[in-house]
Amino acid sequence: MLLTGTGRLAPAGLSPWALVVRDGRIAWVGHPRDAPDDEAIDLGSALVTPGLVDSHTHPVFAGDRSDEAAARLEGVPYAEGGILRTVRDTREADDATLERLVEGRLRASLAAGTTTVECKSGYGLSLDEEVRHLRIIGRVAGRLPIRVVRTFLGAHAVPAGMAIGEFTAHVADDMIPAVAAEGLADFVDVFADAGFFDLDATERIGRAAFAAGLGLRLHADQLALTGTAELGVRLGAASVDHLEQLDDEGVRAVAASSTVATLLPAPALVMRDRLPPGRALLDAGAMVALASDANAGTFGTFGAMPLVVGLGATLLGMTVAEALTAATSGGARALRCDDLGVVRPGAAADLVAWDAEHEGAFALRLGSVRPSRVWIAGEEVDLSG
Amino acid sequence: MLLTGTGRLAPAGLSPWALVVRDGRIAWVGHPRDAPDDEAIDLGSALVTPGLVDSHTHPVFAGDRSDEAAARLEGVPYAEGGILRTVRDTREADDATLERLVEGRLRASLAAGTTTVECKSGYGLSLDEEVRHLRIIGRVAGRLPIRVVRTFLGAHAVPAGMAIGEFTAHVADDMIPAVAAEGLADFVDVFADAGFFDLDATERIGRAAFAAGLGLRLHADQLALTGTAELGVRLGAASVDHLEQLDDEGVRAVAASSTVATLLPAPALVMRDRLPPGRALLDAGAMVALASDANAGTFGTFGAMPLVVGLGATLLGMTVAEALTAATSGGARALRCDDLGVVRPGAAADLVAWDAEHEGAFALRLGSVRPSRVWIAGEEVDLSG
Repeated sequence: MLLTGTGRLAPAGLSPWALVVRDGRIAWVGHPRDAPDDEAIDLGSALVTPGLVDSHTHPVFAGDRSDEAAARLEGVPYAEGGILRTVRDTREADDATLERLVEGRLRASLAAGTTTVECKSGYGLSLDEEVRHLRIIGRVAGRLPIRVVRTFLGAHAVPAGMAIGEFTAHVADDMIPAVAAEGLADFVDVFADAGFFDLDATERIGRAAFAAGLGLRLHADQLALTGTAELGVRLGAASVDHLEQLDDEGVRAVAASSTVATLLPAPALVMRDRLPPGRALLDAGAMVALASDANAGTFGTFGAMPLVVGLGATLLGMTVAEALTAATSGGARALRCDDLGVVRPGAAADLVAWDAEHEGAFALRLGSVRPSRVWIAGEEVDLSG
Repeated sequence: MLLTGTGRLAPAGLSPWALVVRDGRIAWVGHPRDAPDDEAIDLGSALVTPGLVDSHTHPVFAGDRSDEAAARLEGVPYAEGGILRTVRDTREADDATLERLVEGRLRASLAAGTTTVECKSGYGLSLDEEVRHLRIIGRVAGRLPIRVVRTFLGAHAVPAGMAIGEFTAHVADDMIPAVAAEGLADFVDVFADAGFFDLDATERIGRAAFAAGLGLRLHADQLALTGTAELGVRLGAASVDHLEQLDDEGVRAVAASSTVATLLPAPALVMRDRLPPGRALLDAGAMVALASDANAGTFGTFGAMPLVVGLGATLLGMTVAEALTAATSGGARALRCDDLGVVRPGAAADLVAWDAEHEGAFALRLGSVRPSRVWIAGEEVDLSG
């Protein structure tokens, strides 16, 4: 298959362009005059990008916490109570209900141009519930073309009535080995923050992840500067996420590492939180990803990645091309999937043609740029569903 | 017709509720147990609000300035050149093209729950072009159920080759009388700012508007603090819009007047501009409106009002209920249409049932809350188009 266009192939900015897709991968990229003969599809003046990679979401939950979001904006502080409320609502939802909810959320992501999505468990907090949630993600992923990477976030909050040490040991010694044995996740994540999991607990869980052959990613320095980002760098986490409170020293530590800085401007905006130091991280040479953090309590929009690209550019001091890179190859690097999120020979043919001609539309038409056509592994996705 | 619901009737927060619609107006509001017998529609647990009122848009333009938005985020400053580029592109578009563009934009607004929209001319800058644009708005409005209020913004920029005094005189002495004689607009607007129209020019145009029987609204204190908001208050403008640079004295002046402060957080975000003092205006007792400012160069999303409500709450320090009030009755007051944007006996039956149960969803699900059903003057709107 030969795709050609006179619009921009962003973020690299190539125009006009041609690319050959073979066996689900990009086989060749160049100027149309040099293109080989093949079954051709002309995408005209449409902006074309790699499929967006949303490397941080929490899609398995029931219930609605809109009232809490409204109350928070009236001055009620965010607390773990919110997560435990979702845990209760989600435990009461049967498999069919949760599968329907997760499928709707992943379909919304795909319809908005996300071709790879990371999905965390974490609203279970018991082995049975966490395993149930990870299996549900797997079953929904099997029905949809979107690529799914699963993360076990058992350490999302401490269940009522348990001490943090006791629950940390349970996560590290019982839950992670069980999840790994069944192949239910690629990564382990920890909600490390003041009032949640401290550095010792986080390190213990991180080491258990590696021992079980899983990768590590961390919720880091969101509500308070705890040093979690630097712990993540030291442990070799694939990504440290949030970073609203990261200081200059932390910026330098992340920039000097292979750990990706994953920034989540949407919940920071919704929570009126401090914004993560996006410009400083880029200037220091860090690999930056942008992700949605779609979840039950602090940002509930699945299919938000076009908005998130715009927020990266407008709120975090990035150029639109930098924001688009962060939302494609940045996310892919954060998931350790280096053949996704880029347009080069050998990469997966995950591509989106947008209802726009220039990537500046992600800023100008904030939140409303939509795919007109989507391909995953070279197969066109039916967006009408 | 009797509408009932167990969800919230916001922003007042009534639940459960019932309302009677008769002859396009709300005839009665109360508790379901007290409701009269009538043809009943049960809206279940859906959040229901007055239709959103978008009191500041510029929908008549052709061309695409996404490249300029991207360049601006790379450090190129905003200048009037941008408006003149759109003027050129728009002059080259024939009536059918412009009507199709305007109709698409108004349909997108309606599909997102806006039931009243203010539409400015201003990308014409000559009498013939401005009249053409206002007529196009009128023709499109005649085909759609959305309520449309027209504003003549001839003084949007000074055409190339003309002096500001000469063009101001032309707007005041020739264009405004011609527009008023044909009944093409309800309001006159002026892009008053440093480098655009100064206070003297703005006052001259404002007085010409009143002399022609039209209302006045002003682009005020967006790029620089010029005193335009205070001029608007002194002249009796219906609204002063933007206000990014407004100081404490200006806040007090607006709050002590019947002029509405119309805030436009979306373009402020896209332009990384200073944010208008929303909280200070509310605390001082000003009547505040939230509008989209959808336009060719600084924010291009039509149908953005749900996002704008969320941005009011997250960026401007408003509660969600305050933001929703600003996007409904605030906008209506800014358009001097006091029977719109409210739920009370006598008001127009313009109502939206949302895919949400609580108004906090406008923050939590930033940018993705959508109408499930819309009524204008008591008639249900077909959203499938």
